[in-house]
Amino acid sequence: MAEPKSFHMTPQEFREQGRAVVDWIADYYERIETFPVMSQAKPGEIRKELPDAPPQTGEAFDAILADIAPKILPGITHWQSPNFFAYFSSNTSFPSILGELLSAGLGVQGMLWVTSPACTELETHVLDWLVEMLGLPEKFSSRGSGGGVIQDTASSSALCAMLAARERATYFVSNDRGCDGRLVAYTSSQAHSSIEKAAMVAGIGRENLRVIDVDANFAMKPEVLGTQIAADRDAGRIPFFVSATVGTTSSNAIDPVAEIGRICREEKVWLHVDAAMCGTAALVPEFRWIQDGLELADSYCFNPHKWMFTNFDCDCFYVADREAYVRTLSILPEFLRNQATATGLVIDYRDWQIPLGRRFRALKLWFVIRHYGVEGLRFHVQRHVELAQEFAKWVRADDRFELMAPPPLNLVCFRHRGGDEANQKILDRLNRSGDVYLTHTRLNDRLTLRLSVAQTQTEIRHVERAWKRICEEAAGL
Amino acid sequence: MAEPKSFHMTPQEFREQGRAVVDWIADYYERIETFPVMSQAKPGEIRKELPDAPPQTGEAFDAILADIAPKILPGITHWQSPNFFAYFSSNTSFPSILGELLSAGLGVQGMLWVTSPACTELETHVLDWLVEMLGLPEKFSSRGSGGGVIQDTASSSALCAMLAARERATYFVSNDRGCDGRLVAYTSSQAHSSIEKAAMVAGIGRENLRVIDVDANFAMKPEVLGTQIAADRDAGRIPFFVSATVGTTSSNAIDPVAEIGRICREEKVWLHVDAAMCGTAALVPEFRWIQDGLELADSYCFNPHKWMFTNFDCDCFYVADREAYVRTLSILPEFLRNQATATGLVIDYRDWQIPLGRRFRALKLWFVIRHYGVEGLRFHVQRHVELAQEFAKWVRADDRFELMAPPPLNLVCFRHRGGDEANQKILDRLNRSGDVYLTHTRLNDRLTLRLSVAQTQTEIRHVERAWKRICEEAAGL
Repeated sequence: MAEPKSFHMTPQEFREQGRAVVDWIADYYERIETFPVMSQAKPGEIRKELPDAPPQTGEAFDAILADIAPKILPGITHWQSPNFFAYFSSNTSFPSILGELLSAGLGVQGMLWVTSPACTELETHVLDWLVEMLGLPEKFSSRGSGGGVIQDTASSSALCAMLAARERATYFVSNDRGCDGRLVAYTSSQAHSSIEKAAMVAGIGRENLRVIDVDANFAMKPEVLGTQIAADRDAGRIPFFVSATVGTTSSNAIDPVAEIGRICREEKVWLHVDAAMCGTAALVPEFRWIQDGLELADSYCFNPHKWMFTNFDCDCFYVADREAYVRTLSILPEFLRNQATATGLVIDYRDWQIPLGRRFRALKLWFVIRHYGVEGLRFHVQRHVELAQEFAKWVRADDRFELMAPPPLNLVCFRHRGGDEANQKILDRLNRSGDVYLTHTRLNDRLTLRLSVAQTQTEIRHVERAWKRICEEAAGL
Repeated sequence: MAEPKSFHMTPQEFREQGRAVVDWIADYYERIETFPVMSQAKPGEIRKELPDAPPQTGEAFDAILADIAPKILPGITHWQSPNFFAYFSSNTSFPSILGELLSAGLGVQGMLWVTSPACTELETHVLDWLVEMLGLPEKFSSRGSGGGVIQDTASSSALCAMLAARERATYFVSNDRGCDGRLVAYTSSQAHSSIEKAAMVAGIGRENLRVIDVDANFAMKPEVLGTQIAADRDAGRIPFFVSATVGTTSSNAIDPVAEIGRICREEKVWLHVDAAMCGTAALVPEFRWIQDGLELADSYCFNPHKWMFTNFDCDCFYVADREAYVRTLSILPEFLRNQATATGLVIDYRDWQIPLGRRFRALKLWFVIRHYGVEGLRFHVQRHVELAQEFAKWVRADDRFELMAPPPLNLVCFRHRGGDEANQKILDRLNRSGDVYLTHTRLNDRLTLRLSVAQTQTEIRHVERAWKRICEEAAGL
């Protein structure tokens, strides 16, 4: 049987085309400020430029790459632009991009230790490094009772934490018998929507997720939590899970984890702490207070893919009790049995997540940490906070505007005093101009503008220009 | 405020280092056959070579890249080796790697249409292309009542399908009130473990997942399914979800979807069809019979990251009724509100998955389809099936061996007639030799060897050598 012609790209062609893509990306970053930050495309505009029918025969790679600028870029909202101040950032860096490239090149599956020991061991190792770098409680290290794993998002971490809490609270029978209708979960009114989604997915039901009120700074009121848990227990319910937030999506509010943690300990309720955005700040000793009380948490997550120059997806999730956690998510079908797993000496990360398969995501995180060093990461995080604080000063000094929440770190919530309509106009005009991209929230039922400073290339001149443009739009009202 | 020194890699450095990584990958593929396919590392061996403490200051990228060969490669199980015949493949190709690179370079979030219209529209478009390329029922197209989305894995697709089924069966109240204890799901004894995991996660409980018996070919017995559903209904239970498999993990068995579908229609039960591995075969007209009955399914998935040269993660998931599906998974917090979403004219893929964030995964799929064309993809899939069928012939012709299941496509299940111990010895020796990598399953309670042919670079000579090595180990028993 002779081997017929192949349609594959050869390694030599890959060298050439790979170089072309690398150069394309470098060019992109060199001219990224020339694009409107928020895509100006209308619904359907991008699809319209694509051929209706799939290609029957292959095309030259040059032709494919040449299509990116005219056909794809108009539909790109430039998350990596230094003028991107919307949502939370999802920043990246060149070393991270190269880590992702290498991971794609190796193309390994990390579902079991044996399916690529390096994929598992590097992940465990780097997540232990982060315990040290952030000053996280030692129990979250694999050298303690717990350990870390890379999940795709904080949403998945919240779901996994809720599942582990559900099993622990029901003596590990919910997986077998289905969800117990008496279970009740808690989070604040400012928590991320993923907590509500987790309650839906896990069969808890959002009516059984108590939304706890917040104080003037939008942080959970622990006394209300305590009262609610007691009331639920009196009513024969089973309080099982609290999710506290370190850096809420709306306003970067920081729940009082120490007080919440004491209540959870007393009530034997699982405490999950979601620091998706802000967790990275703990790299800087002066911001490490955001982790106060974390020693009382059962699980924790933060996202290097938000603020640590590591491209999405890279959410670092830690548990304090890996045995209970793995018991929640483990299934071992025959086709996955192997000697290494049977010894119990290795971690099989398939038991730490919902999907079975997983890519080698630790590579990019390892590249980022080694490229920047603790020093470099710390520098940039501190710098982002400085820039946001500088912006907050300008807002405070301008009578037309007001801060809507104290800006603890790198997010500033503010508004024009002219009312919701004025703020909506400012926002729409700014975003349509393409000069900057900001998004909004509602705080105390008022439309509030958010300026989130965390893009890799954002410098003082970008923040100055954002403020100048905001002032111009305000003047034009 | 002057801008101080930065720790970032410059675009110019990225051009150089990017070229180095591209060349590293090309070199890797050129010498991939020189590595033992299954990593020979012992537990802890990879970690031992890594420094205990994270680096305080940054390192040169050259030094980082230079560490890959000595420190990481010994812990790599070479999934992309043409001698990899284990599990199911997770194949890739150079165009796909370049698509992943470009996606990492652009670094956009596709959670909402507005956060990068191209990310959403290209995904919808390419998934519609695949409806045409595979001859899938038109209802799975976005131009019909349904549509497709890229999930990370078939596990996540199964979970999302089960959730949508749960909501539909309970008039969309489970999300609010928690899971209804009367719900019952069904799958075959040969289904992937992800169905059981989904039942755990979704609060159904695995005791409420009925495991339906299979026939001599390991395909679900539809009459047993029908009887079981009737019995459950008589007992006051709510049958709500059936997962059928097109290409089981153990033996590539193909459930009779048409018959199962008729039962599901009659009983108003959601039918999900998991074709994670085999779905790609439908590119070839002569294999399109694997989709018989699919017009009766409510949801469907197959994995280009298994057998369509697209690197993990890329599972294509289709639903027939996108309204019911989106209603299941949608949450719209204030910070995600925007004009495009409000018009209802756009798809927001955050409502099609568990996580909120998502990368631009359609790029790599687009690159692959355009590079190969339908013709090239079809050619390679057909070729893999030919190679597997050739191998099956050799097994049939050798008295020492027997086939353990009919090989419908590219997976051959076989064993040495010498008993379980003999087969375990053959397997262990083969894998320890590093020459090839095979894994096992149990069929009819007998240890069974599996040869899965789907690696991008696997040619007849690799399959011949695998057979030669198997025969050698058998001779040495």
